[in-house]
Amino acid sequence: MAKTYIFGHKNPDTDAISSALIMADFEKQTGNTDATAYRLGDISPETQFALDHFKVSAPELLTDNLEDQDVILVDHNEFQQSADSIADANIKHVIDHHRIANFETAAPLYYRAEPVGCTATILYKMYKERGFEIKPEIAGLMISGIISDSLLFKSPTCTDEDRNAAEDLKSIANVDLEEYGLEMLKAGASTADKSAAELIDLDAKSFNMGDHVTRIAQVNTVDIDEVFDRAEELENEMNKVSAEQQYDVFVLLVTDIINSDSKVLVTGADKDKVGEAFNVQLENGTAFLPGVVSRKKQVVPPITDALS
Amino acid sequence: MAKTYIFGHKNPDTDAISSALIMADFEKQTGNTDATAYRLGDISPETQFALDHFKVSAPELLTDNLEDQDVILVDHNEFQQSADSIADANIKHVIDHHRIANFETAAPLYYRAEPVGCTATILYKMYKERGFEIKPEIAGLMISGIISDSLLFKSPTCTDEDRNAAEDLKSIANVDLEEYGLEMLKAGASTADKSAAELIDLDAKSFNMGDHVTRIAQVNTVDIDEVFDRAEELENEMNKVSAEQQYDVFVLLVTDIINSDSKVLVTGADKDKVGEAFNVQLENGTAFLPGVVSRKKQVVPPITDALS
Repeated sequence: MAKTYIFGHKNPDTDAISSALIMADFEKQTGNTDATAYRLGDISPETQFALDHFKVSAPELLTDNLEDQDVILVDHNEFQQSADSIADANIKHVIDHHRIANFETAAPLYYRAEPVGCTATILYKMYKERGFEIKPEIAGLMISGIISDSLLFKSPTCTDEDRNAAEDLKSIANVDLEEYGLEMLKAGASTADKSAAELIDLDAKSFNMGDHVTRIAQVNTVDIDEVFDRAEELENEMNKVSAEQQYDVFVLLVTDIINSDSKVLVTGADKDKVGEAFNVQLENGTAFLPGVVSRKKQVVPPITDALS
Repeated sequence: MAKTYIFGHKNPDTDAISSALIMADFEKQTGNTDATAYRLGDISPETQFALDHFKVSAPELLTDNLEDQDVILVDHNEFQQSADSIADANIKHVIDHHRIANFETAAPLYYRAEPVGCTATILYKMYKERGFEIKPEIAGLMISGIISDSLLFKSPTCTDEDRNAAEDLKSIANVDLEEYGLEMLKAGASTADKSAAELIDLDAKSFNMGDHVTRIAQVNTVDIDEVFDRAEELENEMNKVSAEQQYDVFVLLVTDIINSDSKVLVTGADKDKVGEAFNVQLENGTAFLPGVVSRKKQVVPPITDALS
């Protein structure tokens, strides 16, 4: 049987890593014994906390060329967020909860997208529909993905399906959602030990918006000021990376996971349009955005509108 | 409740019309009372036969601008095959069995694609999963879509899921699959009463392939020669439409529904590449393709490869 490569997006977050591992387990239960989870980048401290807690090994880093290989994408579809050789792969299946863009196949495929808060929630439904066994560590990975993407159920992207999935899974995984969730988020919210270059790349994604390539990075923290004390250093780094990678706009979204607010730092010639997107005037490239925690639902759509 | 527009592709075939009507019934059963089926073009004689047999009215022709309207796409996703204002609509859901290309949304959505022979087969599965009632006329529309897309189960696109769906549905719809199916296909296979302009537009779709826009029309017949007696007239019409619509290549696929073979007529500067795609030399722009009946599985992929 040909190998099936399963992976989430570049700069993987906890849902991208968890969903790849979960989907590999799901595929094995369907009889696809050569389904293998991979990752497209480093494991974040938050994700490492989850893997350690549930005693699961991280997937291997993908280095193979995917030309004519069978692949399953989880938690993403846009090619610029995927493996470099994705356009030459045979995409057999996609499980995702994002918009669809810059995605194309030559052949029919399975595609399952639902507008829920987390890819792991869709995978949970697939296990239930097929009557597949959910092992404790798989339940733990599902919970970790849901808590990470929903910031402990506080994000506006979180739906009842995400909450219900986590509630159903907590006894299998043997965790208290609040206690485990806050520990996991805090493990990923330490910023003092990271360089400016690391911070702006940790959870960053690129988006084609009109004629612009927009880079949007998100950093979770328990202390917004601690991050903005280094604003100048961060801005220099954002300008440097934008010049190298030809990003037209770079948005750094610093999110307070306790109070559920964010502050942005923006660079690029059109940075004032990002301010307009939120009906604010940027000061030194920054603005406080009360109640904003979701890149997908509260940041990408208004900036897309402003730049398109 | 805001209206939901449901429709299949331009130049609708029986699956495109049936699936729109079926999905509107499905949505109503979920409580979406303002779900309404539409069509993007004329009803073909084959489809009219099915509608008459099961006493179902054709959906209304879509003339509204879809800007900011909720829509559900069935049996297609590529924007050039969809409503002219599709890029400005809120696409909430797609049910399809084709490749994904030239499709993009600003927001997350429901998307269900499966590589089966017919969109109606996926809809059948959705009814079963939800335990929804399948009324006799809905069963009849499902069967009609499956028989049309699979040429009575003979196309290589036909899967066991399509065959099993039709077998399960025949008692609800109260039809003999072979007898009803052949009658329906023959109703759509009359070519003598159609002008050359009608024949090349009846079931035609556009595809972006590399830098080329390729138009591929398919005509079902019980007598290939009857169609090719008018080859010169057809070629002139194809050249005229290509000049008007800027098609780089125009392929007319004439399919013998009894013997399951096809003959193609090709126009355009790069027409020899279409011959190469099938490992044949075109003679006067024509070639006989034994065993070829499926545009999706046997025609689009090799031409895409040859032109990309």
